[in-house]
Amino acid sequence: MVDDPPPYFQAHIFVCTNRRPDGHKRGSCAAKGSEALRDYMKARAKELGIPGIRVNSAGCLDRCEFGPTLVIYPEGIWYRPQTREDVDEILATHLQGGGRVERLMLTDKDRV
Amino acid sequence: MVDDPPPYFQAHIFVCTNRRPDGHKRGSCAAKGSEALRDYMKARAKELGIPGIRVNSAGCLDRCEFGPTLVIYPEGIWYRPQTREDVDEILATHLQGGGRVERLMLTDKDRV
Repeated sequence: MVDDPPPYFQAHIFVCTNRRPDGHKRGSCAAKGSEALRDYMKARAKELGIPGIRVNSAGCLDRCEFGPTLVIYPEGIWYRPQTREDVDEILATHLQGGGRVERLMLTDKDRV
Repeated sequence: MVDDPPPYFQAHIFVCTNRRPDGHKRGSCAAKGSEALRDYMKARAKELGIPGIRVNSAGCLDRCEFGPTLVIYPEGIWYRPQTREDVDEILATHLQGGGRVERLMLTDKDRV
């Protein structure tokens, strides 16, 4: 087997932008403002000049109850940012600093 | 720093379903049939009972010229399936077998 290609993106971020009808019992990330947070994250990542990063929209990531949710690959770390300041902290601490924003991370216990 | 949580999904697949207007010079994955391939992959993964797998839609993954494209994380391997048979091969060889479908992989040279 040949070697795997090098990573195409150094940090590939998927922000759930699934929207369910108002009043759905699981809620949805878009109903909790995920689209605006995605737009902000994408713009700020560009402004900061973080290399090799891509911020994508994704369909339902199936952790709706904890949304708005996003996941950062390849490390597979999940976050639930609520505000622009939360996004700023993820960009600075995780994506620029290589650390973790523990207060915003989903853990193994965050499942339904 | 605490340990990272275990992976929430063992295989997290993102299929680009971005659609551009007909005639756009970059083309788009949806215009090349990616939505039907996503639906098929999702259904077949369930039928096969592959554990810990999730097949998601994603916005533009920015490799449109090689689409339909998908990426499998955490390993970060990209494929360009054209047919249901291609999807079957990715499911069997990569996701069940832990191998690679080299003829369908995007490489580091597949960039614009």
